[in-house]
Amino acid sequence: MASMMFTDCSSSTAAARLLPLSRSRLHSDCSSIFIRRFVGPHPMGTNSLRTILTVHSSSSSHVIKATFSAESSAKVIDGKAVAEKIRDEITAEVSRMKDEIGVVPGLAVILVGDRKDSATYVRNKKKACDSVGITSFEARLPEDSSEQEVLKFISGYNEDPSVHGILVQLPLPSHMNEQNILNAVSIEKDVDGFHPLNIGRLAMRGRDPLFVPCTPKGCIELLHRYGIDIKGKRAVVIGRSNIVGMPAALLLQSEDATVSIVHSRTKNPENIIKQADIIIAAVGQPNMVRGSWIKPGAVVIDVGINPVEDAKSRRGYRLVGDVCYEEARKVASAITPVPGGVGPMTIAMLLSNTLSSAKRAHNFQ
Amino acid sequence: MASMMFTDCSSSTAAARLLPLSRSRLHSDCSSIFIRRFVGPHPMGTNSLRTILTVHSSSSSHVIKATFSAESSAKVIDGKAVAEKIRDEITAEVSRMKDEIGVVPGLAVILVGDRKDSATYVRNKKKACDSVGITSFEARLPEDSSEQEVLKFISGYNEDPSVHGILVQLPLPSHMNEQNILNAVSIEKDVDGFHPLNIGRLAMRGRDPLFVPCTPKGCIELLHRYGIDIKGKRAVVIGRSNIVGMPAALLLQSEDATVSIVHSRTKNPENIIKQADIIIAAVGQPNMVRGSWIKPGAVVIDVGINPVEDAKSRRGYRLVGDVCYEEARKVASAITPVPGGVGPMTIAMLLSNTLSSAKRAHNFQ
Repeated sequence: MASMMFTDCSSSTAAARLLPLSRSRLHSDCSSIFIRRFVGPHPMGTNSLRTILTVHSSSSSHVIKATFSAESSAKVIDGKAVAEKIRDEITAEVSRMKDEIGVVPGLAVILVGDRKDSATYVRNKKKACDSVGITSFEARLPEDSSEQEVLKFISGYNEDPSVHGILVQLPLPSHMNEQNILNAVSIEKDVDGFHPLNIGRLAMRGRDPLFVPCTPKGCIELLHRYGIDIKGKRAVVIGRSNIVGMPAALLLQSEDATVSIVHSRTKNPENIIKQADIIIAAVGQPNMVRGSWIKPGAVVIDVGINPVEDAKSRRGYRLVGDVCYEEARKVASAITPVPGGVGPMTIAMLLSNTLSSAKRAHNFQ
Repeated sequence: MASMMFTDCSSSTAAARLLPLSRSRLHSDCSSIFIRRFVGPHPMGTNSLRTILTVHSSSSSHVIKATFSAESSAKVIDGKAVAEKIRDEITAEVSRMKDEIGVVPGLAVILVGDRKDSATYVRNKKKACDSVGITSFEARLPEDSSEQEVLKFISGYNEDPSVHGILVQLPLPSHMNEQNILNAVSIEKDVDGFHPLNIGRLAMRGRDPLFVPCTPKGCIELLHRYGIDIKGKRAVVIGRSNIVGMPAALLLQSEDATVSIVHSRTKNPENIIKQADIIIAAVGQPNMVRGSWIKPGAVVIDVGINPVEDAKSRRGYRLVGDVCYEEARKVASAITPVPGGVGPMTIAMLLSNTLSSAKRAHNFQ
């Protein structure tokens, strides 16, 4: 695993190339973003960076103000705290919906095969649903199932009025056509937001998508909750994946940012990144974005979660983002830590999409 | 009409703001791009710029080489010549298809109401179809038709195997829901390429759209035919309309350009435009892009067609692009004139989309 070679910012040279990010590489779905390569204990508890943050919540504006740390100049954007707040809000809404119209939102997950990591993600989703009062449904099919059998389950969930969101856990066994299967999910229940019709509506002015993909939605939600202006700002998205970079760019543009997308074929990416007021890094390259690439005062949203060797860690590795945090926090005005930044937002947005879907289905305001 | 205020480059000040481009403003459909605001004689014949160009066609690569004019440093990208060549190619393919499988591609146009400009566009489409051997179908409905009546015609054409492309002439009467009507066109016959599903597929890597919108497709085709590299280049698209700017940006990105989109909310657009190797201007502001905004050697594709007052002209106006041509041609390495650049490409791409649709429907290679 190439990304294990870099143990600190300095060893990730400025010449690091941007590599294409594949769906299966880092962020294959709405809840797996921060534990994609691991099965085991959750690394979130080790993030000491959060201790430098004091969170004030303004109930009217949802804007969180962070104090400055004595150690760094950047505000730390605490995704874990924001995600917890969102989950509390969802819990309250689910409860209100149940009380007022007797409907409980439902999320169905389809798991094919025995991959341990996939089983972990599915378990985490179930737990997250339980924690906010969303009903979870699960279909487990053996590895050698036919595409037809999977489609039958999707069709069943499409018809089931108690299911408001459907997720097919990826990757699917190699004998299946992923596109066929994902396209079979009803657009009204596509809580992942990956259906081309949802992406098309996201791209078009005046056409609202039914769902926005969870991770990019989480990035923008962090900007909103921290009161960071987007309109008129220069934004650079690093990475153009279907699940993070591309929809993040479309979202920023829909909020009137001037957006540039940097990718594996971009020459001298640092020159463009340096112009950005807002950087969203989603490329899966540890510590690629150096402090010197960042305009003083820029806001940095780091979607990457990369394991790097760390002999001092009990596990032998630690997780770092696409941005060299130690350098960036001295230049940026606000930054998401890794872990504890974008990661926790992804599953919160999945729950949010499921709730929205149920509300829409029952015309509940 | 604000755009009539500017009569030359110098009077279009550098402080000109980018305005949002509405669908009905300039480029409402695949064939109307250069005569949007006029009903009357076609202004194409007056373009003296084409006389400075020598066109060589290489049958193997389709690359056209242009000679340099003594007067300017930029190659003139002759859209009229390229469009004629494409129409010849389509004519040959339509003929081959008819000979080999007895199928003739068909394009249906639905016109509601009595707008003279719309009637002109529909007539032009019919003529263009006739010239390449595509069968044209036409439905004319009175202004006070119901949405249901229009939908009935769309449904009929959706079912009709001799129709391979359907265009609804816009604007529709104000009592109709444009989105409902456009969404009713079968995705397999959406030769305009505006269906959100086609736009979504255009945005997503690994998902090919069935059709690409005609004007942006024409811009990219011009780059291809003139052998202009896109991969790895900095591209700036000016304007983010659903019909030109946004899909043009997606197309450039799919060809590995590093793309920035400049729009009405962009601060200091000239700073970003100046970085571009390729500029696509589609904002509908006469002479907005000045020579000083252009990097020496950049390629300029000017989609704008704006009428400006001209007392010397018999009609009292002349047409100019979004780019100040006189200034830009001294800086750019290649540039499209207005008229005679992108305009003629749009209808050629409509014919091309119709042919492709017929080939796909009949699995004809």
